[in-house]
This record gives sequence, C-alpha cells and structure tokens, in this order.
Amino acid sequence: MAQDTFAAPGSTTRTRVRRIPEKAVQDRGTLHAILDAGLVAHLAVVEDGQPFVVPVGYARDGERVLIHGSSGSRLFRDLATGTPTCFTVTLLDGLVLARSAFESSMNYRGVMVLGRCVELTGQEKDDALRTISDHLLPGRWDDIRPPSRKELAATCVLALPLDEASVKVSAGGPDDAEEDLFRPTWAGHVPLREVAGDPVPASDNRDPLPDYVLGWRQ
Amino acid sequence: MAQDTFAAPGSTTRTRVRRIPEKAVQDRGTLHAILDAGLVAHLAVVEDGQPFVVPVGYARDGERVLIHGSSGSRLFRDLATGTPTCFTVTLLDGLVLARSAFESSMNYRGVMVLGRCVELTGQEKDDALRTISDHLLPGRWDDIRPPSRKELAATCVLALPLDEASVKVSAGGPDDAEEDLFRPTWAGHVPLREVAGDPVPASDNRDPLPDYVLGWRQ
Repeated sequence: MAQDTFAAPGSTTRTRVRRIPEKAVQDRGTLHAILDAGLVAHLAVVEDGQPFVVPVGYARDGERVLIHGSSGSRLFRDLATGTPTCFTVTLLDGLVLARSAFESSMNYRGVMVLGRCVELTGQEKDDALRTISDHLLPGRWDDIRPPSRKELAATCVLALPLDEASVKVSAGGPDDAEEDLFRPTWAGHVPLREVAGDPVPASDNRDPLPDYVLGWRQ
Repeated sequence: MAQDTFAAPGSTTRTRVRRIPEKAVQDRGTLHAILDAGLVAHLAVVEDGQPFVVPVGYARDGERVLIHGSSGSRLFRDLATGTPTCFTVTLLDGLVLARSAFESSMNYRGVMVLGRCVELTGQEKDDALRTISDHLLPGRWDDIRPPSRKELAATCVLALPLDEASVKVSAGGPDDAEEDLFRPTWAGHVPLREVAGDPVPASDNRDPLPDYVLGWRQ
C-alpha cells in the first residue's frame, strides 16, 4: 500500500521505487524536466544474459525519448528489434555530508524508463534527428548540413515510450539521527553542476562564434 | 585483426570496441584515471530478460571497483549472487560542433566493465566503505561516525574485478569532411565540466567548514 502511494506516474511493479520511497516523485512535469535537463542517458541491452550499458545522446519528444546511434552497432540493431531495454538518466546535483557514514549520500535527479524501442524511418527519422540536435544545442541544426542519404542509412534512430517510468529526486541537506547531532562535524551539502567552458574553434574555422554557442549552459 | 589492435587491456570479444575503434584506448593508466575521476557509475542487472540500470557511488580499489547499496534492494541482492553485470562510467567532456549533423558528436571518457560481483564481508567490507568515502570526498571518513553493526547489516558492498574492461576517449574538435569545409558555419568544440558550488551548511550545523570540503572539485 505505502509503495503504491509513492508509485511514479506510469510506473508498474517493475519501476515502483522500492528503496526510500519518499524520494519517488509523482508528477509528469518532473519526469519531463529531468529528461530535458540531461544530455546523456545510459541504455541497456541484454545479449545471452549479459547486460551492456552504453551512453547515448537523446532528446525527449512528448511522451517518448529519441535515441540515435550507428546502424552498424550490434547493440542498436538488437534494440531496433524491440528487445527489452532500460533507459536511465542521472543528474548528479552534489554530495550530502551527514555526520555518520550511513546517512552520507548524494543529491541527484534520476529517471528510469523500461520498455522496448521502435526504429523510426522516413520523415519521422529526419524529424527525430533534428529534435535530438535541438535538445543538445538549440539553434545548431539550421547552421549545419543535414544528413545525406548515405549518412542516414548509417544512422539508427530509436524511440522509447515513457509509459513505464520512475523518477527519483534527492535534494537538500543531511538527515542525521538525533544521537549524531552532538558530533563536532560540519554537516551540510555541496552542490555540483555542469558548466560550459569557453568554446574552442577548430583549427580550420573561419567563422564567427554564434550566440547560441556562446550562451549554451553558461 | 584491426579490432584486436584496438582491444583495450583486459578486453575480450565482448568488450572490444567495435564502433569507431580509433576511440578505443589501450593503457591501463587511462582506465584507472577515468574511474578515479568519476563519482557515479551506471550498473545493470537483468531479471527475467529485463535489464535495469541504476546509478551507484563507487570507488576503484586497485584492479577492482567497489560498489555499495542497500541490503534490502532486490537489485543488489541479485548482484551479490554473481549474476552477470555491466558497470559503465561516462564522463561527459563537451560537445563537438562539426559542420554536418553526421560528424557532430560529444567528447567523453568512458569505461565499461563486464563481469560478476562478489559480496564483501567482515574487515574487507569495512575497508571498502572507507575506500568509497575516501574516493567521493577525501578526508571525510575521519570526521564521521563509522557504520554501526545494524547499519553495516543494512549495507551491501560488492566488488567487481576490472578483468574485462574497455575504454573509449573522444577529445578535441570536429573531423569534418573535405567537402563541408567551405560552409559558413562555426566549427569547434565546447568543453563541459562539473564544478562544486559553495557548501551549504545544514540548519543544525554548528561547526566550521573543513578545508577538505572547501577545496573539493573547485
């Protein structure tokens, strides 16, 4: 019962957050916001009982995520056949420094999606590549050469529905036990964030830096 | 043949980098350095053909990685039985902005380890918890209350050997095709890095900020 209360939207018994259910988050907006804030997901595929976990660029498109990879990749070919997968995005937000080892932890926002991918083709595939580019660096797509037919053939684009998803958020300071409060130990948390450094032009670049690059993740 | 040349140390046909083999890195020092720089890994477990990918804190201890989780977690209990797993660390270093969509990519350092975990007990378990703490925040362990017997029982510590590991590193700028160089498009890369913000004391904190917190990841 208590676990059901904390089930995330679209969760099933498989994605229900069993450990520390108070960290489960229920609203769909939080699910979307985490996916929209991340750049890289970790995607699993199983071959003969052995899981493989690979980092992928992605984008959210409504109630699904879009993932692209190489058509020549065995893992992507497996995923395209609809083999069960898990898609996980973790945004590390900092360290939680409690007065005990046991209560010390990390702050993070995390999403886990279970399901099966479908491969996109034709116009859907073209649109998905733009959506992924727009997610990673808004404004870039209009400046670059779109994929040729040959490059499209070398690219596999998958969509995974957000039907079965769980969300966990851990934020703020430590939750020390009463009996540890007397300890002469600094307690609190240290935020972490990902920041962009100065753009580095290619040696053969002759063009001015666009505003959308300059302002990215600053 | 070419693939063997690019096999990472300790790699097998399963971890040999098949896609873009020039990104495979061969030396053990790079493997260790990437693991030592990361804070969170993504760990897979398979249940009835369904993979689950969960973020975990970890530390490298010589030629193995140490992972801790809750004894109450079904995933950790499965891993403790020696079910096949995949342990992946990805450090995102930035965006690579080529003049074509196809050559646009990300810079990253990545490690993938395949194998089976063993559960640590007794002194080995105690030592592993300190090693993980020392990796996440050097200096912290001596300031905090070590785990009680009850807390230890609630904690599962696993070790995964680095016997079967692959390393991939992508760095620097884009590699545009000759025919794209004429395009009036800024090309280069944008570095990304994780930085710590100002430490935030807990509301019940009465102690001075230790130097090891102040200097962390600045």
